[in-house]
Amino acid sequence: MRNVVDDIVAEVVAVCRENRAGALADYIPELAAVAPDTFSLCIATTDGYVYESGDPAIEFTIQSISKPFTYGLALSDRGLAAVAAKIDVEPSGEPFNEISLDPITERPRNPMINAGAITSASLIAGEDAAERFERLRTCFSDYAGRELVMNDAVYASEARTGHRNRAIGHMLRSFDIITDNPDDAVDLYFRQCSIDITCRDLALMAATLANNGTNPVTQQRVLAPDLVERVLSVMTTCGMYDAAGDWVAEVGLPAKSGVGGGVLAVLPGQIGIAVHSPRLDSHGNSVRGVQACRELSKKLELHFMHVTRAARSSIRARYTIAEVPSRKRRTQTEQAALAKFGYLGRIFELHGDLLFAGAESAVREISELRDEVDAVIIDLRRVDEVGGVARRMLADLRHDLSTRGCESVVVDPDGQMRLPGDGKGVVFADVESATEWVEEIILARHCGGDRQPPSVTLADHPLLAPLTSNQLERLQSELKDLEFLRGDVIVRRGDPPAGLFLVLSGEVSTTLTDKDGTTHRITTLSAGMSFGEIPMLTDTDFLVDVRADSRVTVTVLSADGFRKLAAEYPDVKLALLEGMAIGAYAQMEIAIRTLGPTAAR
Amino acid sequence: MRNVVDDIVAEVVAVCRENRAGALADYIPELAAVAPDTFSLCIATTDGYVYESGDPAIEFTIQSISKPFTYGLALSDRGLAAVAAKIDVEPSGEPFNEISLDPITERPRNPMINAGAITSASLIAGEDAAERFERLRTCFSDYAGRELVMNDAVYASEARTGHRNRAIGHMLRSFDIITDNPDDAVDLYFRQCSIDITCRDLALMAATLANNGTNPVTQQRVLAPDLVERVLSVMTTCGMYDAAGDWVAEVGLPAKSGVGGGVLAVLPGQIGIAVHSPRLDSHGNSVRGVQACRELSKKLELHFMHVTRAARSSIRARYTIAEVPSRKRRTQTEQAALAKFGYLGRIFELHGDLLFAGAESAVREISELRDEVDAVIIDLRRVDEVGGVARRMLADLRHDLSTRGCESVVVDPDGQMRLPGDGKGVVFADVESATEWVEEIILARHCGGDRQPPSVTLADHPLLAPLTSNQLERLQSELKDLEFLRGDVIVRRGDPPAGLFLVLSGEVSTTLTDKDGTTHRITTLSAGMSFGEIPMLTDTDFLVDVRADSRVTVTVLSADGFRKLAAEYPDVKLALLEGMAIGAYAQMEIAIRTLGPTAAR
Repeated sequence: MRNVVDDIVAEVVAVCRENRAGALADYIPELAAVAPDTFSLCIATTDGYVYESGDPAIEFTIQSISKPFTYGLALSDRGLAAVAAKIDVEPSGEPFNEISLDPITERPRNPMINAGAITSASLIAGEDAAERFERLRTCFSDYAGRELVMNDAVYASEARTGHRNRAIGHMLRSFDIITDNPDDAVDLYFRQCSIDITCRDLALMAATLANNGTNPVTQQRVLAPDLVERVLSVMTTCGMYDAAGDWVAEVGLPAKSGVGGGVLAVLPGQIGIAVHSPRLDSHGNSVRGVQACRELSKKLELHFMHVTRAARSSIRARYTIAEVPSRKRRTQTEQAALAKFGYLGRIFELHGDLLFAGAESAVREISELRDEVDAVIIDLRRVDEVGGVARRMLADLRHDLSTRGCESVVVDPDGQMRLPGDGKGVVFADVESATEWVEEIILARHCGGDRQPPSVTLADHPLLAPLTSNQLERLQSELKDLEFLRGDVIVRRGDPPAGLFLVLSGEVSTTLTDKDGTTHRITTLSAGMSFGEIPMLTDTDFLVDVRADSRVTVTVLSADGFRKLAAEYPDVKLALLEGMAIGAYAQMEIAIRTLGPTAAR
Repeated sequence: MRNVVDDIVAEVVAVCRENRAGALADYIPELAAVAPDTFSLCIATTDGYVYESGDPAIEFTIQSISKPFTYGLALSDRGLAAVAAKIDVEPSGEPFNEISLDPITERPRNPMINAGAITSASLIAGEDAAERFERLRTCFSDYAGRELVMNDAVYASEARTGHRNRAIGHMLRSFDIITDNPDDAVDLYFRQCSIDITCRDLALMAATLANNGTNPVTQQRVLAPDLVERVLSVMTTCGMYDAAGDWVAEVGLPAKSGVGGGVLAVLPGQIGIAVHSPRLDSHGNSVRGVQACRELSKKLELHFMHVTRAARSSIRARYTIAEVPSRKRRTQTEQAALAKFGYLGRIFELHGDLLFAGAESAVREISELRDEVDAVIIDLRRVDEVGGVARRMLADLRHDLSTRGCESVVVDPDGQMRLPGDGKGVVFADVESATEWVEEIILARHCGGDRQPPSVTLADHPLLAPLTSNQLERLQSELKDLEFLRGDVIVRRGDPPAGLFLVLSGEVSTTLTDKDGTTHRITTLSAGMSFGEIPMLTDTDFLVDVRADSRVTVTVLSADGFRKLAAEYPDVKLALLEGMAIGAYAQMEIAIRTLGPTAAR
């Protein structure tokens, strides 16, 4: 199904198709015999979707585009240091087939010129020539995600005519860059260059590099991420023959071209691009390939020095717990203390990807408060990715804060941040729990002596305030006290009406568990509050779970008891309804107060 | 105040300080006379904070680090094409002071070698030599954010001994690259190289480049963003003399060094780095400068080919409006229709920065549904930045959807996305309104004939269900009908108790307006619902605003009327309280149902 990207690709293809400049490579008959004006452009995403246009299934030989892949395999086989001892990474400023080494280092200047590429081939591990080629062919196939095969005719021609490359091989042998028979390395190089690919293959090979070395379709890891970084770096400075500087300035993507007419370009982390059109410019790059990459880079804003925006903070919002308190019901004294001292608890919402610069700005701002507040909440729910250095910086920040007596908690529901040094109890899955925890710290520090014990007598329970002492006595005969321990489920979602529950001591939570199995706390109820009214009054099942958060005493008026009372003493029913109506609206008030800021967050 | 970044900087400085390799530049006495082992490392962020270490206030001459800045000013003065006609952008592979041009193009190979830099100087606009230098000096000062001055002694030495550069000047004149007196351009070049800077200045100059050309402290725009992109590209391939390839592979930051011992490096969009230590390696780069950048790049994960993660979708969550309905109260028939057809309305939550690749994956997924759903909501609240191409892609997507009969709305509370072609009414500030809008589309398409008129008679109002007809008659004498028009405020937050409001027809919203002036809809009430109970029962002020969303009829029982009724007919009060308690819990149920998913989002 076409979408807007197909349209953009089609626009680029339409513009470039007009361009018939350049000539076919003609050093072997097979390259000179291809249809000169075939043209294909493919873009592969890092989730493995491929946009195709033109003739994406036409096969052509990979030629020099094989060089970065062979270099990558050599790095895997021998390690960065061993390969660096044989091949430099400096742009040469010379033609790709120069028979010379750097006069000072006496090494090939980089792996993208023939001398460097033949050296890479000589470094591929394997018992014999056949195994070495099979390993290369399999490696290329893994990048493409399908079995690639060598074009025998092209290989035969390359082998028959490749004296210049044989000369390079012997030169490398004479400088001890190659220590075996140089013809073996040159032959392997001819074979790798003769592997047939399509434009679609090439796009997926590029996307595998873009995807940190993992093929986005097969999910096979083909190259380690640090080696991908190295290969892309070398492609950046040396990939487009001696037009590298212009390429970086105009296109700004690591790329490699081949005389088969292919061009491969990579936007790291994002997409792979492939173009195939056989006419070449004087540098040996596909004319339309270069033009198409240039157009795409401009249209799609792909240049790696392109910055979309000026700096922004990774802190999305900042507020105090006085501004956004928890939903926990507090006594008057506690409420007053939190209103007065709530500014000592701060919440910072971070967002985006936390790489060095983003983490730095957040750490700096939070760090400046370390002597001024009692506790901070670092809310990572909207953070997509945390780099290694950012993880270290956040851990150091927390350590630094704690040495100054400032407590910190992290809200990290997915546990993906794996902050080092996090003990249990300081990472919360939701802001509500974190806020409650910070409120407790502030209350302990600033309201220590005045906090009321969390229990009420039956006579003091607010829901029963409208009852006279006579009415209370009548009610009492229908009540039954129950005790629960921390973690007990008192009622479950779906339970039938079980009566009116008055909390006399301890705390209970009402929770909802969603399809994913995540439990969300709706509200915390403490001594003086109640639950079970809806099911009882409307004769419907419970909508939420209710659990004990601590040792809890409740007293229960059963549904039958309520009916009996109501029948015998309508005045008691009236008083109870009044108490319940006021209680319900008070709870709604809390819900509305928290709903507002939640919706705004 | 120290933070963890200071610690990381200190670690790097401690490691590099051990290194005493290299020698001072000695071609003029002023450079040979400096203290050889001074060392400073500064990092400036794109919000203008500077981390300093060592001796950040020691002055040294900018030397070749002036080249990218002069090149940038030449690009501003003459335009990309005119400058490109005089200076190429290819790495040279030759020493910086080579007296030669590219043999084919007959131009300096790039603006970072002396020949290119002298050409850049010759392109600076100005009436005379004094004005041209003053423009350069002011430009450099704007990058640094303070007045910079030229070091007269260094300039005098450079001018006295600079025969090689004069030779380059005359060579440029002989090839008509310079068309005026070449000595003027060479003299300007000597002057620009002799400007004194500190390591702190250099960090801010780098940060100005990182910040898209705007000085992060003064907020002055010094260079246009597209020219910054060009300057950074050239620094990438040609900035570190003939060690550019190794620099890109190992450090991976656009950079420039000078023989004064300075090194400047840029992480686009993020930070500027500056190092000063006068001992140079054989390439003419500061030994400790190179080492410090290498260490920092590794420690802080700054390499520009470094990809933190594999691909991820820019769609954070996807659900149907059947799964997360609006809070609007619906009739039974409507509820049934929405339960059955709600899957035809889809909500897509996007997040992160929408550049090409992110927008592509989102557009592709949404686009595939175009023949299968009635409407989509594209929720951009968590999107940080939208690139130009992403904006076009989203606009095209919406157009494409609408041609298939699929409506789309965008949720964009900040209006920052400025999607082209957006008419009023299709961009919403919140998901709630967008969801209601989509529900209306689905109801219109699939429930057209069956929708009930949105009104109830007094006798049918659910809150009055517990009343007998006698009780209803008694109540009726205390009721007063009121009409409101769309937009009217019925009660305001802070109003005293005004009675019990029963909605008979039309719709009202309860809303909260936060500190920022943003209004959040709490719930929508329609015929058969009520408000005003809390204030009346508890004798407190209104907590929310209530507005008419359409023409509305309500009937009101005043607080006095309620007291009078309660005194005369306790049975009426009982029935009303029962109705209110049931109504309150029903409303809470809705609040809880929406609170759960909201908290989960």
